[in-house]
Amino acid sequence: MSSPTISTSSYYSTSVASTSSMASHPSSATSAYSTSATRSPSSYKPVLSKSSINPHVINVEYAVRGEISNKANNYAKLLSEGKKESAGIKFDSVVTANIGNPQQQPYLAQKPLTFWRQVAALTELPYLMEHESTRAVFPEDTIQRAKALLADVGSVGAYSHSKGSALVRKHVAEFIQERDGYPVDPELIYLTTGASGGVQLLMQVMVAGPDSGVMIPIPQYPLYSAALSLYNAQPVEYQLNPFDDWSLDVQAMSKSIDEARGKGVDVRACVVINPGNPTGQCLSEDNIKDLIRMAHEKRVVLLADEVYQANIFQPETRPFHSFRKVLKDFSKSQNAEEASMADEVELISFHSISKGVSGECGRRGGYFELCNISPEVEAEIYKLASISLCPSLQGQIGVDMLVKPPKKGEPSYPLYKAETEAIHKTLLQRSEKMAERLDKLKGVSVDPAQGALYLFPRLELGSKAVAEAEKRGKKVDNFYCLEMLDATGICVVPGSGFGKMPDEETGECWFRTTILAKETDEFIERYGKFHDEFMKMYGGDL
Amino acid sequence: MSSPTISTSSYYSTSVASTSSMASHPSSATSAYSTSATRSPSSYKPVLSKSSINPHVINVEYAVRGEISNKANNYAKLLSEGKKESAGIKFDSVVTANIGNPQQQPYLAQKPLTFWRQVAALTELPYLMEHESTRAVFPEDTIQRAKALLADVGSVGAYSHSKGSALVRKHVAEFIQERDGYPVDPELIYLTTGASGGVQLLMQVMVAGPDSGVMIPIPQYPLYSAALSLYNAQPVEYQLNPFDDWSLDVQAMSKSIDEARGKGVDVRACVVINPGNPTGQCLSEDNIKDLIRMAHEKRVVLLADEVYQANIFQPETRPFHSFRKVLKDFSKSQNAEEASMADEVELISFHSISKGVSGECGRRGGYFELCNISPEVEAEIYKLASISLCPSLQGQIGVDMLVKPPKKGEPSYPLYKAETEAIHKTLLQRSEKMAERLDKLKGVSVDPAQGALYLFPRLELGSKAVAEAEKRGKKVDNFYCLEMLDATGICVVPGSGFGKMPDEETGECWFRTTILAKETDEFIERYGKFHDEFMKMYGGDL
Repeated sequence: MSSPTISTSSYYSTSVASTSSMASHPSSATSAYSTSATRSPSSYKPVLSKSSINPHVINVEYAVRGEISNKANNYAKLLSEGKKESAGIKFDSVVTANIGNPQQQPYLAQKPLTFWRQVAALTELPYLMEHESTRAVFPEDTIQRAKALLADVGSVGAYSHSKGSALVRKHVAEFIQERDGYPVDPELIYLTTGASGGVQLLMQVMVAGPDSGVMIPIPQYPLYSAALSLYNAQPVEYQLNPFDDWSLDVQAMSKSIDEARGKGVDVRACVVINPGNPTGQCLSEDNIKDLIRMAHEKRVVLLADEVYQANIFQPETRPFHSFRKVLKDFSKSQNAEEASMADEVELISFHSISKGVSGECGRRGGYFELCNISPEVEAEIYKLASISLCPSLQGQIGVDMLVKPPKKGEPSYPLYKAETEAIHKTLLQRSEKMAERLDKLKGVSVDPAQGALYLFPRLELGSKAVAEAEKRGKKVDNFYCLEMLDATGICVVPGSGFGKMPDEETGECWFRTTILAKETDEFIERYGKFHDEFMKMYGGDL
Repeated sequence: MSSPTISTSSYYSTSVASTSSMASHPSSATSAYSTSATRSPSSYKPVLSKSSINPHVINVEYAVRGEISNKANNYAKLLSEGKKESAGIKFDSVVTANIGNPQQQPYLAQKPLTFWRQVAALTELPYLMEHESTRAVFPEDTIQRAKALLADVGSVGAYSHSKGSALVRKHVAEFIQERDGYPVDPELIYLTTGASGGVQLLMQVMVAGPDSGVMIPIPQYPLYSAALSLYNAQPVEYQLNPFDDWSLDVQAMSKSIDEARGKGVDVRACVVINPGNPTGQCLSEDNIKDLIRMAHEKRVVLLADEVYQANIFQPETRPFHSFRKVLKDFSKSQNAEEASMADEVELISFHSISKGVSGECGRRGGYFELCNISPEVEAEIYKLASISLCPSLQGQIGVDMLVKPPKKGEPSYPLYKAETEAIHKTLLQRSEKMAERLDKLKGVSVDPAQGALYLFPRLELGSKAVAEAEKRGKKVDNFYCLEMLDATGICVVPGSGFGKMPDEETGECWFRTTILAKETDEFIERYGKFHDEFMKMYGGDL
């Protein structure tokens, strides 16, 4: 009720009693802190420089938004400012085929799913549900869904639980159970800021210093290598086979774990991207089984990046198998050792609203599910998640839409069905057409994608291109992709950005393009013309 | 166009040619990877355990969502399941006064600003703009704003630039310029996932190993200490004076930098929270000037957490001064050394949509602005930001609402003005009433807040309470707050959660409560009754 009287000390006093909390605030209006520096103004050296900041940040590489993407952004800016002529730009629009961002305008422009957006709008402005003139716009099931979500989260302007809304997590658990046939504990589901947010969080938990290693596929989505650089741990690479549907060789992976451990790398986890990114393959059930056996034998945690699980192009021959289902199926094994794996192999699976047919990247929603992770570690994961408070509420609501779409008989179902089928169909057509047409170009080989949103063509550019790239101080795939951008405005990512290095003798290399461009024919023509000219100029030795 | 023929090797083969990418995918339908393990199932030791994961994660403490908060969540769950009687719960509702979450239902329930939500709903479902029946609901300026935002971002379902929407960043720059009177480069503004996302990102960039130090106030918002634990750097504490409006003593801070450097700690930056959290003080312009002089002399980067800049309760006597304005004002100094500081002192300022009068925590929006940060470091910050792709689009749109509210003459202005004034008034009234009433309780002293959304009462609990807490293995403030929760359902954060430790002899300690409870009188009564009973039980020696 009363403050103790304390002795005050002035800023001018050189004998401040202590660095204690008791020193008084100056009531004088003039400045009291005199600068004793004698250097001239120009000699000031900033505290933060490339040599003083976190070296692990410097080491990070992230090509999906690297040099080529920055250059593309700059082209787009110049074009929007009407500077095409003055800047000598050879095209009218930039095509951002470097990133799976389906709703990007104007060149991709996939339409959002109506059901998703109706529910989102109602949660933003709940009085639309009450307002007679607007209520007619919203089918009854969107209103019911919005009400249920708001009853759980209160408001989309409120922080939720750090794991995310309890209702949405319950729906995720139901979705996984329906997909896989095994029960799921909603408490082990964490909603995240896209899948990326979850991957970064878990990498940070799992690695414990520079000797920790995590296996990553080559080629890989560069988030994984970037996170490993950032958290100062070792990537332990395993190769996907470009000549056999980018399959993985479990025996070889097992061997590389032994080799890495022999060198003192504490290999703790293995990232698997299925369907693959950038490669688009769908792993066979046997391949996954073998991976699980290996994870058990070698004691590594499996990180299953399954964000493209709804982008499947050959469902009959190459369906999606979730790691969780294949793992839990081991419980039915007659072999006790194998059966025990179902409850022993540590598995973390990721999913996202950014891909699939929703393509709602901008909401930043996703989830991960912990399987066989010890409660003490789960507590640490929760603590770390809580520092970021919670994922965005519209991201969480997006997850609800993803895992609990309209069902047959509900008012929104017919439109939802028509919209999603159309997107699936379009993506399949584009993917097939692009693969077929690109594969016909001289020096380009590409298989149709089994899944995901990309093609990953292999190029044979020849030694002349390599020599020219070298002259410009570039890897040959970088050189090719930069030339493509300059000539066409098409922005793609070189294979080396995914760790798939070019052969610097023959010029064999790769690039990733999305299959999202709206005007597929125009895209193919624009690219094909560039490629032919490039090969005329540099492919002379082929 | 054709794949080279390769030799295949079976999984059974022990002499795999290499760990190369050429090994074939098995076409056999049976499993090929044999487990050689001989251990019994029960002997499996999980890879991830408290002793194997990142020790820096283990070290993190985050009390805002710690033990007490978890217990409160559990109470809320039991109450919602109708288990009040069976669980022996003594109250009917949990009051989450532990976190500034104004829109949380049902106990806080601050209403969202209509303008914000109208624009958000239109960006979610743009056809509402075209639809005649709904258009009437939306004032013309909300439609114009939504159109302008959509023209820039394309869709709220698309990734934006990793720095955030160019249009929103332009508006942020205009807001800062209008506030401070100095031009701002939109390219140096990064939109973030709340302010927390920006703080975590920049901490990660700035610290470079265990000898790096960052000054943090005591008491402090625990995000800062948590981030320093996580990135394995040293907190260098400076004390705020509880008996002089939580002022900071620049001379003492300067001395502690010297002391820390003397011990080998590379002190690089200094966090200042203004208005203070948990303490609510607004720094005087002179205090800020001195801090800037000190930052220049001692070469430390200033991190100005200004997320409560719009929550000011004594605008005449304790206005908000932005660090950026005070820094840039030095350019007018006659003293060349002082004038040079305006372009030399490295300053990063944070703002958020979660506080103020919007309280839109769940959208996860905020920004930081880089001032005098070298371009080479800025490039690294950009690279790191790009790994997370972009902040949520509705968070970005929230920032647009924050920095560019309706102006006089625009259709939404009257309602916006009425809503924001009412919220300001309510917060002021609650804050004053709570401070006045709590201060009258025996053993409680609390000053009215100058800013932010909290009170930080000082308690004198006495030695008997300390002894009882010790018996239970708790700090005395933790004991008090847990007892409060058990008795009343009110969830607050003990001072030690902010680094303000209790005096374990006299029982002097602190707690933070938000001022957000809707039923202020009821809150005060509930709390007061508990406190009196606590003091009757444990305050016997006072």
